[in-house]
Amino acid sequence: MPKYHDDLDAVLRALADPTRRAVVERLARSPAVVSELAAPFSMALPSLMQHLRVLEDAGLITSEKHGRVRTVSLRPGALDVLHLWLDEQRTPAERQADRLGIHLTRTNPKET
Amino acid sequence: MPKYHDDLDAVLRALADPTRRAVVERLARSPAVVSELAAPFSMALPSLMQHLRVLEDAGLITSEKHGRVRTVSLRPGALDVLHLWLDEQRTPAERQADRLGIHLTRTNPKET
Repeated sequence: MPKYHDDLDAVLRALADPTRRAVVERLARSPAVVSELAAPFSMALPSLMQHLRVLEDAGLITSEKHGRVRTVSLRPGALDVLHLWLDEQRTPAERQADRLGIHLTRTNPKET
Repeated sequence: MPKYHDDLDAVLRALADPTRRAVVERLARSPAVVSELAAPFSMALPSLMQHLRVLEDAGLITSEKHGRVRTVSLRPGALDVLHLWLDEQRTPAERQADRLGIHLTRTNPKET
């Protein structure tokens, strides 16, 4: 699956930077305009725009311009590729623990 | 939490390479000796050792030498920092869907 692995490469590289992760964390709450995203960082706007471009190229965010205001959103399902890969890496012991957890939820719904 | 973010940087950077991800995928099944890990890759052993060093520095793997044989293992909980970060990024809609899923599991255990 070369497409899947290319996507993962891009997503992981994009997220391997604390500023870009902070942008994703902010957008997970709600869309935001660029000036709002820039506010918490002591960073020149062109540098932030460069980070946004990396996130957009990785398929993590989308943006839309209305007049002079650009609104940035987390793309729905943006992190699915990473969830999927992580799920596949669960070790046999973790899978067993998960099955036990599901079993307990089903048999003792009140106690969970 | 600078430590948490440094760990995440290192883990994400280490995983943003298809060879290193393939090594983690293999080790999620069971520990392996270095020659076994090298087998699927048409790669010189020093290059593979370099990849293993990056994974070890990121805290993802450990290795142990017995005589002339080095066995490599996925560190238990190696990917927890990434699971944790991803969980924190669930959007309000995803959180609501999760709560609904748990509710359905509890009220209709047979149908899940």
